[in-house]
Amino acid sequence: MPDLTIIQTGDALRQTVRRWKREGLTVGLVPTMGALHAGHLSLIELARAHCDRVIATIFVNPRQFSPGEDLDAYPRTMERDTALLREAGCHALFAPAVSEIYPDGFATSITVAGISEGLCGATRPNFFGGIATVVAKLLILAEPDKAFFGEKDYQQLLVIRRLVTDLALPVEIIGGALVREADGLAMSSRNAYLSGNERQMALTLYHTLKEVTAGLEAGAEPGRLIAMGLERLVSAGFRMDYLELRDAETLEPIERLERPARLLAGGYLGKTRLIDNMPVTPRSHG
Amino acid sequence: MPDLTIIQTGDALRQTVRRWKREGLTVGLVPTMGALHAGHLSLIELARAHCDRVIATIFVNPRQFSPGEDLDAYPRTMERDTALLREAGCHALFAPAVSEIYPDGFATSITVAGISEGLCGATRPNFFGGIATVVAKLLILAEPDKAFFGEKDYQQLLVIRRLVTDLALPVEIIGGALVREADGLAMSSRNAYLSGNERQMALTLYHTLKEVTAGLEAGAEPGRLIAMGLERLVSAGFRMDYLELRDAETLEPIERLERPARLLAGGYLGKTRLIDNMPVTPRSHG
Repeated sequence: MPDLTIIQTGDALRQTVRRWKREGLTVGLVPTMGALHAGHLSLIELARAHCDRVIATIFVNPRQFSPGEDLDAYPRTMERDTALLREAGCHALFAPAVSEIYPDGFATSITVAGISEGLCGATRPNFFGGIATVVAKLLILAEPDKAFFGEKDYQQLLVIRRLVTDLALPVEIIGGALVREADGLAMSSRNAYLSGNERQMALTLYHTLKEVTAGLEAGAEPGRLIAMGLERLVSAGFRMDYLELRDAETLEPIERLERPARLLAGGYLGKTRLIDNMPVTPRSHG
Repeated sequence: MPDLTIIQTGDALRQTVRRWKREGLTVGLVPTMGALHAGHLSLIELARAHCDRVIATIFVNPRQFSPGEDLDAYPRTMERDTALLREAGCHALFAPAVSEIYPDGFATSITVAGISEGLCGATRPNFFGGIATVVAKLLILAEPDKAFFGEKDYQQLLVIRRLVTDLALPVEIIGGALVREADGLAMSSRNAYLSGNERQMALTLYHTLKEVTAGLEAGAEPGRLIAMGLERLVSAGFRMDYLELRDAETLEPIERLERPARLLAGGYLGKTRLIDNMPVTPRSHG
């Protein structure tokens, strides 16, 4: 196992990466908000397969939370995270203070129209703007060859792809497959909030997505199937923000399954926000 | 004189700069909208004094014009510009098509709060957002060591400094002094719009700024002096958007001259927008 270098300033991050690049090494970046689970660790593994050196970042980004959301309660488990990254063979951890990312007088916002609207963007007004701003800054600071984001946050992944294309950031964005618990629940740092009872109820999200996806791929009419899925989730105790079928690349709403699509869900179980998504493939593309 | 390389794609720009950097050369960028005059050429000269290689960019950025502004009429003089850059010893010209900067589906906007508000930002809603977005993209594409912007566009210069600090773009921003015609009128590509009569009237902007500045530096009360200046400009035929005394670094409005300040003016003569500004130094800083 390589040693894990802890980096706290942007300057030190940039110097570390530039030194590696001068040595001919390729560098992968895995941005996270900490509270690491197997999903994050699969991204570290993916990054190690692609790059000679892997840097994880842990930064609970205040700008992607709206007032009333769980910024203060968001799980912070730095000691455990550090141990997990070391075990996973990560080479460096960038864990900046908030003032390092947002210095005094910080006034810049980056927004990505279109793909940020609807789904999670509809109910979380600061969310994707906050993400685009911090991810752009991390990519500018770190100058990685590749950066890795999980498909769990599917809309986020597409927002970041759009951002990187639009600003011509010299980095390749690579999506990592969603990782699930043994019983199917999508891994999430927020699963830690769930009570034992809620943890059982949460499974309905997975089962519903799976069954709606199977029905869609078998040729069922999307509108009716999705309405039934929503009803099932609400009966199971979810307050749903959305359950929608979207184009897999543009996230435009679609009414018929004619090209690769994604079924996406977001909502609350008690106070805990959960999201999940699955690819939906038309039979002709199967 | 070095030969002037014409570059049309972002990829070619990045490759050129990276090749120069591998050879140990430093690179300066001078972004312009073309219609070059002595002010621009002074920035090329400044860049040559600072850097081994100088790249000018010419891009009339549609996103910094609002509907009804002079985007279509904006002077385009590429052949003459190219000759001037060659004579000035510029090494490369990046002159991309609009589709090269804003590819299909482009959806990203960068805004800089605070410093973009008021002055030119008050009447030109898309202006500084459009500038921040395109300048960020040019800096990301070109990866220059230093970039040069004229103090003629003083608010723009401060918006760009804030943008670069906030996003940690690895470039030093250098301001070049405002260049004036022999009679004092600030050089501007838009001066070409002025009729012979308007060209004479335009001088009042320079004389008013000069006299208000002299009065302020002699200790006069800003409010009254600026009101008189505005009155004089309106009498001379200007439709003024603003004549204001601001902090030289933050652009915050100031009511007393106690620290380095800037007197800034913006308005219209006929259909032509003119801006100008001057440093105002308190006696204790003289």
